[in-house]
Amino acid sequence: MYNYDLKGKNKYYTLYSCVRDDILRGKIKAGERLPSKRAFAAELGVSVVTVQLAYDQLLAEGYIRSKERSGFYAEKVAEGLKEERKAASNYTEIEQEENFKIDLVHGNTPPNMFPFSVWARLIRSVLSDCGEHLLERVPCDGDKGLKSAVAAYLYRSRGIDVDPRYIVVGAGAEHLYGVIVQLLGRDKLYAVENPGYGKISSTYALNGARCLPVGVTDTGIDVSVLEKSEAHVAHVSPSHQFPTGAVMPVSARSRLIEWAKRSGGYVIEDEYDSEFRLTGKPLQCMCGLCPEKVIYMNTFSKSLAPSMRMGYMVLPPALYDRFLQIFSSSASFVPLFEQKALAKMLDGGYFERHLNRLKNYYRTVHGALLKKLASLPERCEVLDTGSGLHVIAKFPDAQSDGQIKSVAAARGIKIKCLSDYLLAPMAGVEGCAVINYSGLTPEILSQI
Amino acid sequence: MYNYDLKGKNKYYTLYSCVRDDILRGKIKAGERLPSKRAFAAELGVSVVTVQLAYDQLLAEGYIRSKERSGFYAEKVAEGLKEERKAASNYTEIEQEENFKIDLVHGNTPPNMFPFSVWARLIRSVLSDCGEHLLERVPCDGDKGLKSAVAAYLYRSRGIDVDPRYIVVGAGAEHLYGVIVQLLGRDKLYAVENPGYGKISSTYALNGARCLPVGVTDTGIDVSVLEKSEAHVAHVSPSHQFPTGAVMPVSARSRLIEWAKRSGGYVIEDEYDSEFRLTGKPLQCMCGLCPEKVIYMNTFSKSLAPSMRMGYMVLPPALYDRFLQIFSSSASFVPLFEQKALAKMLDGGYFERHLNRLKNYYRTVHGALLKKLASLPERCEVLDTGSGLHVIAKFPDAQSDGQIKSVAAARGIKIKCLSDYLLAPMAGVEGCAVINYSGLTPEILSQI
Repeated sequence: MYNYDLKGKNKYYTLYSCVRDDILRGKIKAGERLPSKRAFAAELGVSVVTVQLAYDQLLAEGYIRSKERSGFYAEKVAEGLKEERKAASNYTEIEQEENFKIDLVHGNTPPNMFPFSVWARLIRSVLSDCGEHLLERVPCDGDKGLKSAVAAYLYRSRGIDVDPRYIVVGAGAEHLYGVIVQLLGRDKLYAVENPGYGKISSTYALNGARCLPVGVTDTGIDVSVLEKSEAHVAHVSPSHQFPTGAVMPVSARSRLIEWAKRSGGYVIEDEYDSEFRLTGKPLQCMCGLCPEKVIYMNTFSKSLAPSMRMGYMVLPPALYDRFLQIFSSSASFVPLFEQKALAKMLDGGYFERHLNRLKNYYRTVHGALLKKLASLPERCEVLDTGSGLHVIAKFPDAQSDGQIKSVAAARGIKIKCLSDYLLAPMAGVEGCAVINYSGLTPEILSQI
Repeated sequence: MYNYDLKGKNKYYTLYSCVRDDILRGKIKAGERLPSKRAFAAELGVSVVTVQLAYDQLLAEGYIRSKERSGFYAEKVAEGLKEERKAASNYTEIEQEENFKIDLVHGNTPPNMFPFSVWARLIRSVLSDCGEHLLERVPCDGDKGLKSAVAAYLYRSRGIDVDPRYIVVGAGAEHLYGVIVQLLGRDKLYAVENPGYGKISSTYALNGARCLPVGVTDTGIDVSVLEKSEAHVAHVSPSHQFPTGAVMPVSARSRLIEWAKRSGGYVIEDEYDSEFRLTGKPLQCMCGLCPEKVIYMNTFSKSLAPSMRMGYMVLPPALYDRFLQIFSSSASFVPLFEQKALAKMLDGGYFERHLNRLKNYYRTVHGALLKKLASLPERCEVLDTGSGLHVIAKFPDAQSDGQIKSVAAARGIKIKCLSDYLLAPMAGVEGCAVINYSGLTPEILSQI
C-alpha cells in the first residue's frame, strides 16, 4: 500500500518526509489511521525504530496524533496549503547521492580565517598559568573566569548588562537546548519558528518535549498565533530569523514579552549569528528588555570553529536558581582547558579582532555574491537584511522549488529553499532559495 | 501539618528526604494523598519547582505514585523495612554545615599524581601536528583516532575485542546516560542497583525515564527480582558494585544476559572504577560475553582527572545504527583537542604507565587504611574485594548509622554509610561505613 523507497543512511527522515508529503497532498486523508509501527516496519522492510523515529518527528510537528491503545492518525491540514510542498519532495535523495562542488546549505567558516596561532599561544599559556588547577572539577555553570569574560563581552558588543553569575556555559547549542527542557519541563509545549532551523525542534523532540511550529511573518514569529496557543516557551531568533531573515521590530518584541508575562512562559532568544551584522547596529536584545522572562543564548560555532563545542545562555535569576538546584552536584560538560583559553581570548580582545577580520572578509564575499546573483540569467530578487550569513534569493519565474534546486545542482551547487525548512505547511514561501554564504570564498564564486 | 525545615542550598533534596523518611516511618500512610505541588510550596515557603523536583525524585524511586487529575499518593512500603532508614535521616544537614578535615565521601585523585607535564607535552604536539584540522567538526560518535585508541586499550587491559566503530565518545558518564535514554526510550523502565550511586537514577529521572531500584546481593543485582519486573534495561556495575563492593560471578552474569535476551532488553555494564583492581585479574566483561545485549561504559574521571569530561561506551551493533540515525547530523560534545590528546596518551602507553603508578600509590594508601581500621578502638570488620577505590567497614557494635557518622564527624571525618546510598528500603545494611579512599594520602591517614 505504501510504496516508499527507503534508501540511503537517513531512512527515518525519508520515511517521515514521505508520510508528511502524502498528508500534505491528501493521499493520506485527515483522520486516516496509519499502520502500526510493527506492521509498517514489516511492510517497508525497515526496523521498528526507524518507523518510531519517523512517527515521533511527525507527532512533534503535528502531522499526526496518537490515540492511546488505538494508533496513529493523520491530522487535518488546511486545504489550500496541501499543494505547497509538492515540488520540494524527493530532493533529499539527490542531495545525498550527488557530489556538489559548492555547498550553500551548511558552509563552515574557512579554516584559514581562524586565528590558529593566537589560539595555540593561548592554550600554551593556559597550560603554564593554570597548571594543575586545570584538573579540578568545573562547576556545573562553567568556569567563573569565562562567565565574567562573556558578561564583559556581551556588554561591549551588545550593550547587555548581565550579572555574570546568571551565565551558564554548555557544550554547544544542542546541549543547552537539552538543559532548557530539563529546566522548564518536557510536559511543556515549545513554540518554534516556521520555517526554521530543524535542529531546534528535533532536539526538543529528542529530549521528549512537544513542539508547536508557529509561522514567521515579516516581523518574526506570529505573536497573535502564539497568544491563542497553549505554548509555554517561544524559541525565537529575533535579530535575524533563520531562514527567512526576518528581523523582529521592537513593537513585536514587546508584544512577545507581554505574552510571556501573561502566560507565565519564557522566551528563548537565540542569537545564533548576531555577530555578523554587516551594516548598521543590531536592535536591542530582548533579554535586555525583560531579563526575567528571556533566556538569551549564543554559541561560538559560527564565530570561532564548529569543533569548538561551546555555547552559553543567560538565565533569568529564578531559572538560574532552579538550574543550581538540579545540577549543583554535576560538573560542566566543557573541559576547563577550552573555557580558560576562550576567557583569555575574550579578555585579551583577540576574539573581537578576529570577528572584525571575519566581518570584513564576509563583506567582500557578500558583495561578490550579490553581484553574481544580479548577473544570473534568471530573474532574481534578493531579500537581504544586512545581517547574518545568509540571504534569500527569490526566483519569481521558477516553476517550482524543485526546478530551482535542479538548475543549481546542474551547476554543481547544493542549495535549499525556504520550503525545505518548513516544519508545518505555510503559504507563500515558494521560489525562494536560501543561500548560506559562510563557506563561500570569492574564488569559489568566480567559478560559478 | 508538615514541619519540614528546608534550609540550605539543596532544598528539593531535603524535602525529598523528609517525605521519603516519613513514608518509611509510616508517618505518611500508604494511599495517603500528598498536598498539591502549589499548596505544599505555599505551606513550606518554597517554590513550586522545589516541590516538583522532590516529587519527581519520589516518583522515580517509587515512593509515591501520581493519579491523573487527582494528585500524588504515598505508595505501600513493606512493613518490616520501615524502620531501616530511621537513623540515616537528618545527617544531610550536618554534612552541609560542618567543615570536615577529611572527606571519605567524594575524594578526588591527588592532583600531583596526574602526569601533567606529559599531558601538556601531548597537547602541544596535538597543536603542532593537527593544526587547522582541530577546527573541523567532530563526528557524533567521536574522533576516529580516539575510538581506535580506546579499542586497542580495551583489548590490552580488559581483553575485550571490540570493533572501534561501535565506540561512542561522550562528555562524561552523565552525558552518556542521557544519550542512552534517547537511544532506548524514556518510556522504558530502567533497573538500577540498590544501594547504588544516586547520580545514575537521578540522571535517568532528569532525562524523563523511570527507575526501578533492585536490591544488590553478594553476587550483584538480584536477577530473580529483575526477572519478575517490567524493567527493560539493567544498569549494573558487575566488576565492583558501588557501594557494596559486590563482584558479580560469571553465573550471575550469564543469568543477567539470559534475562536481557528473553526480555528483549539491555544490560549497561558500568565499569566506573575497574582500572583499580589492586590484586588479581578482573573477571571477563559482560560485553565480551554477549556484545549484542550489553552496553559497556567507562570514563576517565577517576583514572585521569574529574575536569576531563570524557567517557565512552561500546554499543551493540544494532544500537550503534540507531545512534547514527538519531545523531548523524550532530557533532560530538567533546572538543577534538582533548580527544586527540587522549588518543596520543593511550597510543603512546602514557595512560597505562600513569595507571600503574596510581595503582602502586593506592596500594600503599589501601594498606595504611586497613592498618588504621584495625587499630580503631571500635570493633570493625573490613569487607574488601581488592578492587576499586572504596572499602566497606562494618561496625557491628554501632547503635545506628547516625552514631557512626557522629563519631567520624567528631574526628573531622566526613563519611557515609551504606544506608545513605539506598534508593529503596532494604534490610541488613545497617552499621556499614563506605570509605572512599581515592582522595586519601598516607599523611592524612597518619593525622587521624
